[in-house]
Amino acid sequence: MMSEDNKVSTYQFVAEPFHVDFTEKLTMGVLGNHLLNCAGFHAAERGFGIATLNENHYTWVLSRLAVEMEEMPRAYEKFSIQTWVENVYRLFTDRNFAILNQEGKPIGYARSIWAMISMETRKPADLLALHGGKITDYICKKECPIDKAGRVKITEQTPCFEYQVKYGDIDLNGHVNSIKYIEHSLNLFPLEMFREKSLRRFEVAYVAESYYGDKLSFYREQINENEFDIEIKKNDAEVVVRSKVIFN
Amino acid sequence: MMSEDNKVSTYQFVAEPFHVDFTEKLTMGVLGNHLLNCAGFHAAERGFGIATLNENHYTWVLSRLAVEMEEMPRAYEKFSIQTWVENVYRLFTDRNFAILNQEGKPIGYARSIWAMISMETRKPADLLALHGGKITDYICKKECPIDKAGRVKITEQTPCFEYQVKYGDIDLNGHVNSIKYIEHSLNLFPLEMFREKSLRRFEVAYVAESYYGDKLSFYREQINENEFDIEIKKNDAEVVVRSKVIFN
Repeated sequence: MMSEDNKVSTYQFVAEPFHVDFTEKLTMGVLGNHLLNCAGFHAAERGFGIATLNENHYTWVLSRLAVEMEEMPRAYEKFSIQTWVENVYRLFTDRNFAILNQEGKPIGYARSIWAMISMETRKPADLLALHGGKITDYICKKECPIDKAGRVKITEQTPCFEYQVKYGDIDLNGHVNSIKYIEHSLNLFPLEMFREKSLRRFEVAYVAESYYGDKLSFYREQINENEFDIEIKKNDAEVVVRSKVIFN
Repeated sequence: MMSEDNKVSTYQFVAEPFHVDFTEKLTMGVLGNHLLNCAGFHAAERGFGIATLNENHYTWVLSRLAVEMEEMPRAYEKFSIQTWVENVYRLFTDRNFAILNQEGKPIGYARSIWAMISMETRKPADLLALHGGKITDYICKKECPIDKAGRVKITEQTPCFEYQVKYGDIDLNGHVNSIKYIEHSLNLFPLEMFREKSLRRFEVAYVAESYYGDKLSFYREQINENEFDIEIKKNDAEVVVRSKVIFN
């Protein structure tokens, strides 16, 4: 039986001046990138990181991410991110995060769902068999008081924006980076939105991969004053990403 | 007389997995952002950083940047950046950088030119009068063996790309972030360019500011097999940025 201490890791950050938006709040894209890095650090430190997995030709794939913030770190402020594994199933694992301000008070939380795939067959792997099932040793019951991501269903037929995937969108995996979808989706909103409101919650489900040169079409549907659903399709066909944006 | 030791600062970095491109090399945009941060740290530590200046309603403005890399840090590699002040004139200061690999060997250098402006009048301030002329105490003769940026003159009349400035382009100063111009400019090149060649040098001159909603037009001219000049105009009129990209 492992102590709870070894299950949660905490990583320190500073909101860099050019990682904040015009309201001086950290951008959701940068925060998302930090979350992914923390997931990587936490896994690597416990023997199920990408470097270890890659030797066995497996890699982690982010399936869903939901981030909910009461407030965002401001330019030059220190903050920290805690992460832990909430659950492990055969094909998915739930990893949660808490974002703490410089006084150590939680200012937000995030939930993520990951799968592991074989880099040769692109097929999902059995997480319970991974590393002799050791990943289950790290399951931790720490509280994550935000909702799980819901279903997003778009009926809108006319894209509000189209975009051809470029060099800078492609990451070391050779596909469009998960964070880029968040950034492109937030770019659908006018500047006034971010001046008048705060981005409270961002949910994203990664459904398929997209690649260099793909045409991405963005469909946006307003659910209520502060809530928007977004669907991204590639090449007028397959859904790539579904997300929900909630301001307040 | 100050010792040379106090004139150069060194900052440590790691090439984060999602800060590299599909070839697993650190992107020029991320490197540029690190350089700007190092400039900020170095100045702040010596009493002429933005926070100190802002009290007196002044801020630093980047006028030119030239980065030349023999090789780029790869995903997960550690590297460090050294920075120092090469010269101080009345209206401009030259700040240089060395980028070192994890063994401490220089793998590239950068030159930058900065002005200081009043945030009220937007007019340039006299750097020799700043902080009682103390900035000149930090002038350092450390070698920076790369060329200064040259002149870029574009004759091409047809833009190869047009782009409307979006939320994510705007930084805490309320204008398009300097790094975003670098990223948009590199996105003009096809993926194959980065597969077949390495980005050796990027020069950029910031001529004017652009804002949310501006239409940016990108004009590109090929100088020789590996060299391209780029000009960005806003709203079919004013030149905003001129840059040069050299592959090898």
